Amino acid sequence: MLDILKKPLSRIAFAITGISLLACTMGNGIAKAEGPTFQDVASQVFGQAVGPDNDGTLYVFGLTAKYTQPKYVDGRGPYKSFLKFLPSIRWYDPEHYWTPGSQNEGVFKNEECVLCHTVQTPTIVKDWKKSAHGNLEIRRGLGVKGKDGKPVEGTVGCDVCHGNDHQKLFMPTYKNCGECHPKETAEHRSGGLGSHTHAFTVNVLEFSWHVGKPAEEVAGCAECHAIAENRCDGCHTRHVFSPAEARKPTACRFCHMGIDHDEWAMYNTSIHGCLYEAESATMDWSKPSKKGNYRVPACAYCHMQDGNHNPQQFGTIYSDMGMFQVDRGAPKHKAKRDAWIKKCQDCHSPRFAADKLAEMDAGVNLSFTKWREAAAVIVGCFLDGVVDPMPEGSPPDWYGHYTFSLLPGGDPRFYATSNLERLGLEMICYLTGNVYKAYAHMSMYNQTYGNGSAFEQDRKLIEIKTEAAKLRRFAAIEKKIGLEHKSEAFWQHGEYLDLLPGWIRKPGDVDVEWFKRTDIPHRANADAGVEVHHH
Amino acid sequence: MLDILKKPLSRIAFAITGISLLACTMGNGIAKAEGPTFQDVASQVFGQAVGPDNDGTLYVFGLTAKYTQPKYVDGRGPYKSFLKFLPSIRWYDPEHYWTPGSQNEGVFKNEECVLCHTVQTPTIVKDWKKSAHGNLEIRRGLGVKGKDGKPVEGTVGCDVCHGNDHQKLFMPTYKNCGECHPKETAEHRSGGLGSHTHAFTVNVLEFSWHVGKPAEEVAGCAECHAIAENRCDGCHTRHVFSPAEARKPTACRFCHMGIDHDEWAMYNTSIHGCLYEAESATMDWSKPSKKGNYRVPACAYCHMQDGNHNPQQFGTIYSDMGMFQVDRGAPKHKAKRDAWIKKCQDCHSPRFAADKLAEMDAGVNLSFTKWREAAAVIVGCFLDGVVDPMPEGSPPDWYGHYTFSLLPGGDPRFYATSNLERLGLEMICYLTGNVYKAYAHMSMYNQTYGNGSAFEQDRKLIEIKTEAAKLRRFAAIEKKIGLEHKSEAFWQHGEYLDLLPGWIRKPGDVDVEWFKRTDIPHRANADAGVEVHHH
Amino acid sequence: MLDILKKPLSRIAFAITGISLLACTMGNGIAKAEGPTFQDVASQVFGQAVGPDNDGTLYVFGLTAKYTQPKYVDGRGPYKSFLKFLPSIRWYDPEHYWTPGSQNEGVFKNEECVLCHTVQTPTIVKDWKKSAHGNLEIRRGLGVKGKDGKPVEGTVGCDVCHGNDHQKLFMPTYKNCGECHPKETAEHRSGGLGSHTHAFTVNVLEFSWHVGKPAEEVAGCAECHAIAENRCDGCHTRHVFSPAEARKPTACRFCHMGIDHDEWAMYNTSIHGCLYEAESATMDWSKPSKKGNYRVPACAYCHMQDGNHNPQQFGTIYSDMGMFQVDRGAPKHKAKRDAWIKKCQDCHSPRFAADKLAEMDAGVNLSFTKWREAAAVIVGCFLDGVVDPMPEGSPPDWYGHYTFSLLPGGDPRFYATSNLERLGLEMICYLTGNVYKAYAHMSMYNQTYGNGSAFEQDRKLIEIKTEAAKLRRFAAIEKKIGLEHKSEAFWQHGEYLDLLPGWIRKPGDVDVEWFKRTDIPHRANADAGVEVHHH
Repeated sequence: MLDILKKPLSRIAFAITGISLLACTMGNGIAKAEGPTFQDVASQVFGQAVGPDNDGTLYVFGLTAKYTQPKYVDGRGPYKSFLKFLPSIRWYDPEHYWTPGSQNEGVFKNEECVLCHTVQTPTIVKDWKKSAHGNLEIRRGLGVKGKDGKPVEGTVGCDVCHGNDHQKLFMPTYKNCGECHPKETAEHRSGGLGSHTHAFTVNVLEFSWHVGKPAEEVAGCAECHAIAENRCDGCHTRHVFSPAEARKPTACRFCHMGIDHDEWAMYNTSIHGCLYEAESATMDWSKPSKKGNYRVPACAYCHMQDGNHNPQQFGTIYSDMGMFQVDRGAPKHKAKRDAWIKKCQDCHSPRFAADKLAEMDAGVNLSFTKWREAAAVIVGCFLDGVVDPMPEGSPPDWYGHYTFSLLPGGDPRFYATSNLERLGLEMICYLTGNVYKAYAHMSMYNQTYGNGSAFEQDRKLIEIKTEAAKLRRFAAIEKKIGLEHKSEAFWQHGEYLDLLPGWIRKPGDVDVEWFKRTDIPHRANADAGVEVHHH
Repeated sequence: MLDILKKPLSRIAFAITGISLLACTMGNGIAKAEGPTFQDVASQVFGQAVGPDNDGTLYVFGLTAKYTQPKYVDGRGPYKSFLKFLPSIRWYDPEHYWTPGSQNEGVFKNEECVLCHTVQTPTIVKDWKKSAHGNLEIRRGLGVKGKDGKPVEGTVGCDVCHGNDHQKLFMPTYKNCGECHPKETAEHRSGGLGSHTHAFTVNVLEFSWHVGKPAEEVAGCAECHAIAENRCDGCHTRHVFSPAEARKPTACRFCHMGIDHDEWAMYNTSIHGCLYEAESATMDWSKPSKKGNYRVPACAYCHMQDGNHNPQQFGTIYSDMGMFQVDRGAPKHKAKRDAWIKKCQDCHSPRFAADKLAEMDAGVNLSFTKWREAAAVIVGCFLDGVVDPMPEGSPPDWYGHYTFSLLPGGDPRFYATSNLERLGLEMICYLTGNVYKAYAHMSMYNQTYGNGSAFEQDRKLIEIKTEAAKLRRFAAIEKKIGLEHKSEAFWQHGEYLDLLPGWIRKPGDVDVEWFKRTDIPHRANADAGVEVHHH
Repeated sequence: MLDILKKPLSRIAFAITGISLLACTMGNGIAKAEGPTFQDVASQVFGQAVGPDNDGTLYVFGLTAKYTQPKYVDGRGPYKSFLKFLPSIRWYDPEHYWTPGSQNEGVFKNEECVLCHTVQTPTIVKDWKKSAHGNLEIRRGLGVKGKDGKPVEGTVGCDVCHGNDHQKLFMPTYKNCGECHPKETAEHRSGGLGSHTHAFTVNVLEFSWHVGKPAEEVAGCAECHAIAENRCDGCHTRHVFSPAEARKPTACRFCHMGIDHDEWAMYNTSIHGCLYEAESATMDWSKPSKKGNYRVPACAYCHMQDGNHNPQQFGTIYSDMGMFQVDRGAPKHKAKRDAWIKKCQDCHSPRFAADKLAEMDAGVNLSFTKWREAAAVIVGCFLDGVVDPMPEGSPPDWYGHYTFSLLPGGDPRFYATSNLERLGLEMICYLTGNVYKAYAHMSMYNQTYGNGSAFEQDRKLIEIKTEAAKLRRFAAIEKKIGLEHKSEAFWQHGEYLDLLPGWIRKPGDVDVEWFKRTDIPHRANADAGVEVHHH
């Protein structure tokens, strides 16, 4: 099968045929609708049969495989008419997607669960036995009390969270945990926009970066967001459910890492984080996150003071991941600022804390001068019609519109857009947002030359200008010689682009009732009910 | 010497002379063969003498240093006629390159080795004394038996692995270790293409990324690959040779890190990896990698089940680092899939495991739609002749051919090629390959916006289209105005490019006998025996 | 306020007005001096008022906020006439900027300090009690002696380092520490250019990357550099001041991380670093950094041998962060090389060490062939006048000059320059410099495909050629059609660019006396006293 790869191209006659065929049909990168597909042509060139991508064939560089939709389940929320999930969502949003699936039958007591699972899945039993649920000694030591106020003598067995009937086992959500832990659950549920409280219901179901893409490439997004809102074992992992574990930054890291949620790295590269790395193995994590208990703070120490399960309570002014600008040191935010300084005072002088917070504001404000400089260049190109492609040359966004993505009404997106819009979005979302987080966590490295830093902004600003300068230069030349530029077809169509939901949006397919819900804080620019453009 | 750097350019008359000279000789970045070299001109501008780069002079920005070849040793394998290694290869492929080099004379007993080295290199003696080789108590505890089946009473001394004659000391390979550890060594030797078993003999000696470049910049590649195949102390580092050490992910990390081998980060960013970070210091690594022994799996737990030293045994379908597409959930791979699920079942329900593996297949299949979309754009540019440079304008690849690198017969390379080919190779090798690894290790971060992720693919796809759009736009303009484009000379020649082995390939310089060897699985597209083009 | 964001652009009449206004005033990305600002126009488009960026308003994407200078304090050094710092500098350069600021009054004995701070800031008291300063048992165990040579019985209390009068508390510098620790301080002060000794006085006060930018975006740079030179508690953090802590690589990591100071990652990705990660929790860090005490070396083991506080003592030939080229294996550097090999010999054979060091030289020398190839392409474009923008089209550098940044007299900068110059600077500073550090620390990963690696150099070289090729192609087209290219105005002006100090440089504003100081090693290309160009 791979023989063709063993010989240079020039030696292979039928490959040449393939190349010619390729040239006829897709010189511009777009296969014609009536002609052979890219896969057909690649099949000639690579001497490998075309086939479906789900049949287990090993396709060389995947070039002759044809995409087949995976098994989906219906989405929910305002865009449920076209939103899909992979079946694995049942583990992450069990309240809505769970279906029992065990092959074993029977109704069991906890002792029986434990007996069998000690063999089947011994680690989770060991974990449970180390937990305050499964270990009576720990329970007594903690003084755990039941709803009647009396010390609880029994353990919290498997059945409490999963049921007894093996054919009807369920997966617990925060609601189940909340039956015994009402205070923590109430705190967990008390956040606003941008908090764990609505991380799934709002930030997945209403948000572009998830709704606008095929389910299979954003499954990971949905999962983290679902764990944060729907489950308690994201931070207190099963089946130990340990408060100590959740006090470590590793508990937060799983979600709060990487280019656009880089809080963990901001902490980790601070002097706090360096000392954590040096000393965590010898620190006593069983102590509450209180003044005097830890040489250095980890995430929860500041963000979940006294164990309060609403981190937003101790957060800063919510600024859409730092993409909005706000001076947190202004007199109107005095109460918030004083609260931070009070926490820093556990170890530092109030003046030191105030100086560092003033530094944060100064750094953030400066960073926005670069962003506005970039925005002016980008919008200028749009206004002069030199962006390539202009909105009409891209696929419709997931609203079904052809609108400049960085202006009101547009859908900021990292995909299916022009290079200039992408660069701009990276600057505001990846870099400018992180400048704030770097200063807030005293990460000198990320303030200056790391992720979300002065130097990275400098780089992006030059990249944006470089792109804008070239686009304008092309336009001037073409104008001078009377050549009309038409953006390439590959900006609008392609095997991937053609899978985007913008193409299938229909007027009236949004559940406008959803946006009347007052129990959740809808995203600011939700586009509910707006008529779809392109149909 | 650096005085010139203390003054602005405009103040320095002879610098101006230098600049003019520079303009005359290398305005296009290429020094003319008969004229002064770049170094000569830079010497005028920077007021610093030209000299060889190996004489110990400190050259400002290295601009006036002339490259001198380092000391090489002859390579081996099918391309030994032009392949070179640095002398340090002797430590990594001792079977073929070792030469004794000690300055001390004498034949010594183990006790004497230990006596002297306790002073000379105390740590390695301490390590040995902590090892099952050097510590009788440990040996007895482990019930170590000799070839005769009886408990071994003595230690394994220095001389067993290095010899007694200090002038003839040798460095052990897996063959030496295999004398006492035949089972592990047999397993280590039982892998196929892509395994540790052939990591050097095939993946270095036959592979483009190593053979195609000067030895000194790929020494690090060769070393890791050599350790993996030739030596056992890459995972069980000397002189402790500890199984516990090899159970930790840090043992795998040294090689399996970074943009194109990023397995460690995929694990580390998973919830397994986060828990490892949180708890590794308190885990008992002396326990075998068996069900119930570890709260979270590390690499070896799944990939070296029951200590089997052939990780490929428990791997997935080999897909050339994920660059080939395969749906691992297809019925034809049921046995393989069932084996994975069985391992996940140590802690998880089989349905959970199956759901996650289905998610992996869905994610991988979707990722290949983006890659094919990119490939169509790239190949379309090649077919229309707008790639800059076209293959004839680059140096010959290491086969000696001028062939489009992403089509059969070409040599995919990250260097000495057009920007478009480089971007394409990055997309398939760096990103698409990693999408699979991210899903396989449940790294939500890397599935979506990390290394090898949906968002990084989106970025690369836009970069590819941006480049293609500009190339086509230039071509359209030049056609309209009747200007013939010739790719710049710097694409083909330069101080570095001129060192590439493609220039010196001669017909018949491949050892075709090598490819008749049946003891190793040759790379699929090895180009043995093909006549060299450009001579 | 955010209502406009809830509707698509086309639905909003006044937004359209805004867009038109935008087009009239800043189609090219530059607001006209007399017309409305970018903020004014964005205000129309986004329906959000223009306001100052320090009033606490939450500005959507920061687009209508107007930059207000933060509170500055005067800088010092040769450029003090225009250099500024944020007030937080007082914590980092207390000798020059400290002002007492406590709100509490009174003169206190150490016991009183401890009493009150046990409540106020308990951790720092706990730390002190664990330290050799505050713990008599530890002091006795260490055999600490006073200046009179007799064993010291008392503790070193708060007042020794901070004074007794709460209204006149001071922050200690190395000078205070040096009163009791003269040997360590003398070593700390004995370095040359590039050492901790002058990390602030020279490398901040005289250096372009700090002086050339607004204070608020380089505060983090200044802080790390200040800690390194001015304070001892960067490595021995307060209030434990532990030698053990400083022996761990985490102590060095805080500063030595990231793209242009990536020493920590070079170590961390070596086999030494992998073993450190695996075993640090069980290593005894209280032992001195001497032969036989550690299974693997951490930073201080090699760079601060026997506790010598001048790491440069054991460094390599200083080469300006690796940006200059030098073959460290040349005979003239034999003494230095022998010293390294001697240290490696703690665990390794001298031949192994020599082989690895030869590999380093070979790798570095090869890496410079790529850099020179790039430099030739870049300078060639400058000489042919095709860089976009040419120096006259950028803001003046911080000397006040319009000079090509990569030639003598120019100011190499990552900002406010052409893309080609930026790419070139990244290649020499970010990549070529790191190649050396990768080899020096035996990081195979970073030698080959990580940060500062053969493959990253390959990528950058192609990026540079891609940019150069396009610039030349534009120029050829424009010449053919008689279109004069003028670089875009946004290269020279913008909200951020207009804040750069180059605009305000005046002749005679450099303190030339500074450069007569002989107690510090001035940077090689300091531009003192040169007349400013553009005034």
